[in-house]
Amino acid sequence: MYTISSNTFKTWERFYRANFINSLTGFKSVSLIGTVNKKGQCNLGVFSSVVHIGSDPALVGYINRPRKAAPHTLANIEATGSYTINHIHADFLPRAHQTSAKYSEGINEFEAVGLTPEFDENNIAPYVKESKVKYALNLKEIIPIPFNNTFLVIGEIQHIKIDSEIMMTDGFLALEKIGTLCSNGIDSYYTTQLVDRYRYAKPDLKPETF
Amino acid sequence: MYTISSNTFKTWERFYRANFINSLTGFKSVSLIGTVNKKGQCNLGVFSSVVHIGSDPALVGYINRPRKAAPHTLANIEATGSYTINHIHADFLPRAHQTSAKYSEGINEFEAVGLTPEFDENNIAPYVKESKVKYALNLKEIIPIPFNNTFLVIGEIQHIKIDSEIMMTDGFLALEKIGTLCSNGIDSYYTTQLVDRYRYAKPDLKPETF
Repeated sequence: MYTISSNTFKTWERFYRANFINSLTGFKSVSLIGTVNKKGQCNLGVFSSVVHIGSDPALVGYINRPRKAAPHTLANIEATGSYTINHIHADFLPRAHQTSAKYSEGINEFEAVGLTPEFDENNIAPYVKESKVKYALNLKEIIPIPFNNTFLVIGEIQHIKIDSEIMMTDGFLALEKIGTLCSNGIDSYYTTQLVDRYRYAKPDLKPETF
Repeated sequence: MYTISSNTFKTWERFYRANFINSLTGFKSVSLIGTVNKKGQCNLGVFSSVVHIGSDPALVGYINRPRKAAPHTLANIEATGSYTINHIHADFLPRAHQTSAKYSEGINEFEAVGLTPEFDENNIAPYVKESKVKYALNLKEIIPIPFNNTFLVIGEIQHIKIDSEIMMTDGFLALEKIGTLCSNGIDSYYTTQLVDRYRYAKPDLKPETF
């Protein structure tokens, strides 16, 4: 076991440190966030910081980087109050990753990378047609995180589109059946394999799987 | 493709909806958070809402449920300013899941489930000895999320303990080599398999793997 203190990693080269610290929090969800500006131009970006906040109301957060580094998604959400979050699968992974390139404001990433915007009467932000699990949110609040100029963006889920074959009888979604990917660090993508589902844990019982 | 609106899922039975909404955000990190109170009694809980906030400073967040539902970890962090986040591996998964049981305040979950607290001169919160990637944080801020009485708890990484074999030459941590698990929903745990690492994306280049 190797111990590293903040005094050490603060001196590391910037990209080395970013690779390291981004991997440290473990495997994480990775999704495409779809938005549109007031002129109707679509935007699509890859985000690996989506976090569940609550089920009732159904609240989801994500961390948006500082405005200078990642301006378009945040500006569109502020302007329209609408966005979609779309799971990523291996068959369109290269195109999903490519949305992380810094395209200029006038570029529609759907067109630039070759993914299909899917419009719907329920929300103005586009879904990604290729995605098998996706949901549309209304903005609830943008909370600034002062230490590094990032933001916690909180939305409430309005509509959900899923492949019904993954819905189990207790509401659980078997995401591995449709190959939803997860990520590690800045640039690595993974499939998953179920180890076990466990029953609700109680203090006086031993852990029990389904 | 099946569309579900919030008017529908708001009427669902509570546990069914929780299973569903918790799965919707995709695979996520799952970790044990170790704390200690001012009397020296340790606490350990499983959390699947750890999120990377930044690398410089090295900031990590997690969502703490409402105080009534999950009081001990938050109270200990407030009292001491210190906590550890520890990856979970398959060889101690049943014990890790069992920390989600609602033990009363006087119970030390390390003892109750059979995991080993690891003390260190650098921080008062205990690590989990069985974990192969773990890090200690100092509390930076607790941000209340008013919509459902949860909290975004933000800490700055102070010390990191890792198995050095997983450190790649560019700082990336190959977590699949030590079987760090991820989770889905409330109660499911997964191993991962690398699909690809991609190079930094640029607008005028095609996606390229390592």
